[in-house]
Amino acid sequence: MKKYQRLAQQIIDQIELGVWQPGDRLPSLREQCASGEISFMTVSHAYQTLESQGVIVARPQSGYYVAPRLAATPRTPAPQVIRNETVDINTYIFDVLQASCDASVMPFGSAFPDPRLFPLAQLNRSLANVSKTATAMSVIDNLPPGNEALRHAIARRYAQQGMNVSPDEIVITAGALEALNLSLQAVTEPGDWVIVENPCFYGALQALERLRLKALSVATTPEHGIDLAALEQALNDYPVKACWLMTNSQNPLGFTLSPEKKAQLVALLTRHNVVLIEDDVYSELYYGREKPLPALAWDTQRQVLHCSSFSKCLVAGFRIGWVAAGRHARRIQQLQLMSTLSTSSPMQLALVDYLASRRYDNYLRRLRRELAQRKQLAWQSLCRHLPPEVKIHRSESGYFLWIELPEGHDASLLSERALQHKISIAPGKMFTTDRLYDSYFRFNASWAWGDREEQAVKTLGTLIQQL
Amino acid sequence: MKKYQRLAQQIIDQIELGVWQPGDRLPSLREQCASGEISFMTVSHAYQTLESQGVIVARPQSGYYVAPRLAATPRTPAPQVIRNETVDINTYIFDVLQASCDASVMPFGSAFPDPRLFPLAQLNRSLANVSKTATAMSVIDNLPPGNEALRHAIARRYAQQGMNVSPDEIVITAGALEALNLSLQAVTEPGDWVIVENPCFYGALQALERLRLKALSVATTPEHGIDLAALEQALNDYPVKACWLMTNSQNPLGFTLSPEKKAQLVALLTRHNVVLIEDDVYSELYYGREKPLPALAWDTQRQVLHCSSFSKCLVAGFRIGWVAAGRHARRIQQLQLMSTLSTSSPMQLALVDYLASRRYDNYLRRLRRELAQRKQLAWQSLCRHLPPEVKIHRSESGYFLWIELPEGHDASLLSERALQHKISIAPGKMFTTDRLYDSYFRFNASWAWGDREEQAVKTLGTLIQQL
Repeated sequence: MKKYQRLAQQIIDQIELGVWQPGDRLPSLREQCASGEISFMTVSHAYQTLESQGVIVARPQSGYYVAPRLAATPRTPAPQVIRNETVDINTYIFDVLQASCDASVMPFGSAFPDPRLFPLAQLNRSLANVSKTATAMSVIDNLPPGNEALRHAIARRYAQQGMNVSPDEIVITAGALEALNLSLQAVTEPGDWVIVENPCFYGALQALERLRLKALSVATTPEHGIDLAALEQALNDYPVKACWLMTNSQNPLGFTLSPEKKAQLVALLTRHNVVLIEDDVYSELYYGREKPLPALAWDTQRQVLHCSSFSKCLVAGFRIGWVAAGRHARRIQQLQLMSTLSTSSPMQLALVDYLASRRYDNYLRRLRRELAQRKQLAWQSLCRHLPPEVKIHRSESGYFLWIELPEGHDASLLSERALQHKISIAPGKMFTTDRLYDSYFRFNASWAWGDREEQAVKTLGTLIQQL
Repeated sequence: MKKYQRLAQQIIDQIELGVWQPGDRLPSLREQCASGEISFMTVSHAYQTLESQGVIVARPQSGYYVAPRLAATPRTPAPQVIRNETVDINTYIFDVLQASCDASVMPFGSAFPDPRLFPLAQLNRSLANVSKTATAMSVIDNLPPGNEALRHAIARRYAQQGMNVSPDEIVITAGALEALNLSLQAVTEPGDWVIVENPCFYGALQALERLRLKALSVATTPEHGIDLAALEQALNDYPVKACWLMTNSQNPLGFTLSPEKKAQLVALLTRHNVVLIEDDVYSELYYGREKPLPALAWDTQRQVLHCSSFSKCLVAGFRIGWVAAGRHARRIQQLQLMSTLSTSSPMQLALVDYLASRRYDNYLRRLRRELAQRKQLAWQSLCRHLPPEVKIHRSESGYFLWIELPEGHDASLLSERALQHKISIAPGKMFTTDRLYDSYFRFNASWAWGDREEQAVKTLGTLIQQL
């Protein structure tokens, strides 16, 4: 046994003994070297080994932490592709969302990050500026495809990442949700087959239900993202019209596809002539050094409809999103003109004003750091208070944790009981057309961590034990 | 021949001689009495007779005017009900609307009133107030059904007219257009039959096309509004799911149904258990003494979805409308949550601030007066410059004139040629699924009348003569 293996085994033993609890921070590389008179390389090698085994997890600028304990019994593997001729999920989602709206509820089930993270003062300043400069005619400039300066600002952000998107291909929408819905409608007819991830953002399932589309749910895991082999199978077996998925910080799993996998995904869809509707609302919330590219970056056929918004990273209430729609831009504008007409003009102008102030990137850096810290604190608290059989999947982006109860436990029931204690969670059932994720829930970890949050997690732990 | 008949005939003779041109103001009752030494009663009786014959038209607070000359040949009467299994109108509408967006174009084809009529300074003040008071959490208060204070303010306006609408039945939407679309979707399935007016607001036809509904277009005239007998026939012959129409200042005709006819309409639809989707966006733009009631006022079964907005009477760019949805309110909220999520929060808050200032009703009074005057000036100009065979239908509300070219003249061709001269009009083809209104167009008369407008109308006249 090599030195680093010995150290790794030693740490595993310590964890089993309870020296280190799930969520505990391990000694830093430097501290470990000093205490054991071993080389930095050895410690580093040992930690990397443990990380690859899933025993510990690395957090940039923070250190190494003991991973939550894994569920004892291995799960039955999920089916690769599930087909649904009709989607009927909406009433359940609506009930859960409505229940979570109550301001007195601890919003662990919320889809939005803590709005107190947003730069309220600066946004209000921009709103005040608009109130000074708005003219009677400015509304006419903001009909679809939307305010020109705003479309230019968005196009420049694509350009910063090396993507050439013309402002003319961009349509401003009421948040990403309208962008996604218009995109889906632009490329499908009722009864068409559409591929979604399993689990996926419930908005996709609602859109399929609303537009009477048929769903092919392709297996997706927190470790590897979408199963490309299963995706290919689905493309071979069905006359698929569109594929709606998230390549960055997937909701609810948090997984970000590697550049290689994104390239493969685009190539595969292009080969089958299937449009990709890419939901990329969390792309600014990466924790690494560089902003991950969307699949759009590999698109040479203008087959990708790339949808995003400012709602998850700057301001939720403005309801401003967009789609880089390539050759579908004209059709999207038509659909918007006949459903909501356009997005509100002062909101677009306020964003133009804010983006012109050049504060956005500095603010985003602070936001990412803060979100990473808050997620870390939430994760530690969950490790402390949830039973050890609960598995907590976390990713290095966004603000969601995907939590897996032991098989047979019903997260919907947990959700109901938690609501009685004024705590919301987002049960797995919201994210799928089947029963596969009945024992999972999504946890919003964007809140400033204090006594109230700690207490709520403790209550959750007790409720899980009572299940 | 009685005295008043003699006077009436005398005026008809003068008009035929060209003493009085279409659009000319006749001497007032008082002036007429003084000049002819006849009694006030006689003059009044004569004018009323001429008005009932359509020779002259009365304008409140302005006097009597010579009516535009009528088309010489009577038209073939329109079919009572036209059925369309598929609606395919959108591309044409989109092209016309896009062409009209150009700021250098004289916007006689526009659907919106001159935005310079809106109280920009006050609205901007409200926006500035919001920028001072908005909090991080205010977004959560504004998820569907929308801001509570705003829903209360709207409910109070219903109450002023004696209608009891609970704030809980009101859903705030992105303009009336989203309200109408969500309403239609809430009560139909693809393939269902829906009744619309013929001609009707093109948004209704676009919605039918988008939602794959079948259209029954019921004959509607500028003189009498919708043909209730034809409506009943359609209800008897088809399994109709919904009826979308405008009872006040119908677009494009301008007609307002009488209270009796509204009552009959509601009774008829209730008897057939058909939902009424009432588009009431022009209700504030009446010229008479009292705001007309919507059909909703006669609804005892909560079968009416009453849709309106602030976009035509206060501010277009905010994109705030609503639906008083009765027992459909929950379903509408669901549909909104899955398509646009919600309307923007600062826009809702700004309206709450503005409405709390109690300036709204005073402003509306000024707006109505101004619109009536502008429409009068536009009408006079059209009477001066359009060939006498052109018939100009006008109503005592709103800001549209419905203009009828001699039979066989193509208003779409006129629209194309007018655009080359930087003038837009809204051709009749936009408002119907058939060819019945090919020789009609809608004219927006809300613009301050000056040389540029006068010149544009002159150009229109020349172009019509060249057709």
